[in-house]
Amino acid sequence: MNISILGGGGFLGRKIAEALAASGKLGSHPVTSLTLFDLNPPATLPAAFPIHCVSGDVADLPDKAIPPGTDVVFHLAAVVSAAAEADYDLGRRVNLHGNDAVIDACRKLAKPARVVFTSSVASFAGGQQAKLADDARQMPTNSYGAQKAAAELILSDASRRGFLDLVSIRLPTICIRPGAPNKAASSFVSSIIREPLLGLPTTLPVPEDFAVWIASPAHAVAWLMHAATMDTAPLGLDRGINPPGMSVTTGAMLDAMEQVRPGTRALVRAEPDAIVAGIVGGWPAAFAPVRAHSAGFVPHGSLIGLVEEFLANDLAATRAMRGV
Amino acid sequence: MNISILGGGGFLGRKIAEALAASGKLGSHPVTSLTLFDLNPPATLPAAFPIHCVSGDVADLPDKAIPPGTDVVFHLAAVVSAAAEADYDLGRRVNLHGNDAVIDACRKLAKPARVVFTSSVASFAGGQQAKLADDARQMPTNSYGAQKAAAELILSDASRRGFLDLVSIRLPTICIRPGAPNKAASSFVSSIIREPLLGLPTTLPVPEDFAVWIASPAHAVAWLMHAATMDTAPLGLDRGINPPGMSVTTGAMLDAMEQVRPGTRALVRAEPDAIVAGIVGGWPAAFAPVRAHSAGFVPHGSLIGLVEEFLANDLAATRAMRGV
Repeated sequence: MNISILGGGGFLGRKIAEALAASGKLGSHPVTSLTLFDLNPPATLPAAFPIHCVSGDVADLPDKAIPPGTDVVFHLAAVVSAAAEADYDLGRRVNLHGNDAVIDACRKLAKPARVVFTSSVASFAGGQQAKLADDARQMPTNSYGAQKAAAELILSDASRRGFLDLVSIRLPTICIRPGAPNKAASSFVSSIIREPLLGLPTTLPVPEDFAVWIASPAHAVAWLMHAATMDTAPLGLDRGINPPGMSVTTGAMLDAMEQVRPGTRALVRAEPDAIVAGIVGGWPAAFAPVRAHSAGFVPHGSLIGLVEEFLANDLAATRAMRGV
Repeated sequence: MNISILGGGGFLGRKIAEALAASGKLGSHPVTSLTLFDLNPPATLPAAFPIHCVSGDVADLPDKAIPPGTDVVFHLAAVVSAAAEADYDLGRRVNLHGNDAVIDACRKLAKPARVVFTSSVASFAGGQQAKLADDARQMPTNSYGAQKAAAELILSDASRRGFLDLVSIRLPTICIRPGAPNKAASSFVSSIIREPLLGLPTTLPVPEDFAVWIASPAHAVAWLMHAATMDTAPLGLDRGINPPGMSVTTGAMLDAMEQVRPGTRALVRAEPDAIVAGIVGGWPAAFAPVRAHSAGFVPHGSLIGLVEEFLANDLAATRAMRGV
């Protein structure tokens, strides 16, 4: 199987590449080649198959990014929420025109490639009281979500026309992200656990009964890889999947952390932030992902497991990166 | 009020221009200038205010199409259903990249213009049994509908950002269209009344109990003009309006025609067409347009009125055009 990862230098793209390199397989299919595409040249990694690293602008996609014979495209290249809100033209260029470029590259392939597209919980509205069904309308409250929802529509139509074979995964807020806090409104969802586990103080900008829809990095990667080989025939025209994340309160997250590493909860100080609460409060706090269950997406594990996953997979690299 | 009509040479654009020229007003506001933009240079018409005719490609929109000081933009320029299905690149260019160009032109205005966008019933699925609520998901089954739904999302986000002030009207199938039958799958919806009223035979490709969601040209024009001056504050972020069309069976349409012009029903011959029935059968046959009613959109009249409207407004011009 020849695989391309657009956004192959990013957090999730890198984890998919590492999983492919470690197993040599995608599902039950041997990997024959891997192309990593990103704005900055992605680093290669040791693998039993050739890895090609390509850099460029997704809106002006080089032919080498999706070479002839590509079977699977992980389409993760995006300008994320805070950046798309701050720079409208950049968000449109990458998230919409980049999407057109991916479709056009797929049209050149002899056989329609499976395209796994990362959409987002940010493409929905609903707020704290919402529990969205699989056919819920996407009514985004931010440019990133609007561009993701529009890209889903255009990719879905391209799939119907036979240009490609789509699965769109509306990812929950990923938690615990390795690295450092950033300016995303949802940054606190990871920070409230990651920072204390690093021994650092942090703040909680929302109440402890505030609910969020989350997924661990390992679950997100598992879902994207499942989407790459699943049978799409039962999906029909509707290629959007709300995966089985977890609806949890921030208080429950802190309790799980405290249980795994006693003493860490004391590093979290309540500091209400109306702006952050306003943005994240517009996103739905829960879904009823019936289709995802029947399509074989693995349900999420426990909060304890999510904390332990970070300790096992990402703590050391985060310490090294930040020098703490 | 300075007004631009993009697609000002088309069927509905022309009717809006004629209404503005006749009354000199949009709602209660005097019209101070009108710009008609289309691919081919639109013809001017007599009016008490200056009319500027501009031709060009909407995806490469000339500055003169939305000049400084524009208050209202009727954004009707589109590649329609059958054409967007036949030529993917053309549909994308006009229906999506043209939409971006309209947004960018509006960003140059000193004050956000009201933009009235024509979306379509073709952006929904559902079929004969559907009666869609105002928050129904748009899951299009054709490229035209996908491009319209995506454009709604992008325009709605531009509206939220303050680039413009949007109302999107998801028009029903317009019936009775003047002129001649065309290759649109929905062409029969007009032909089954227009052709017999011209004294010409025609065919009915679906059963007589087949339901369609329709609007007369005069109602569509009234809704678009209401959208141009209504208070958008109560709409909040959701700028999509399902207007109060009529859900009618083809049999009821033929009965109304026969009542107005006895003897015409005999000119309609049943000739089932599975392809046409398949396409049109995917569109929802009814809506429950609660928001539209509360926002002051006039409810549709009777089928008798729809037949009489064609006889009064469009029969003579259609006869002249077709020489029948």
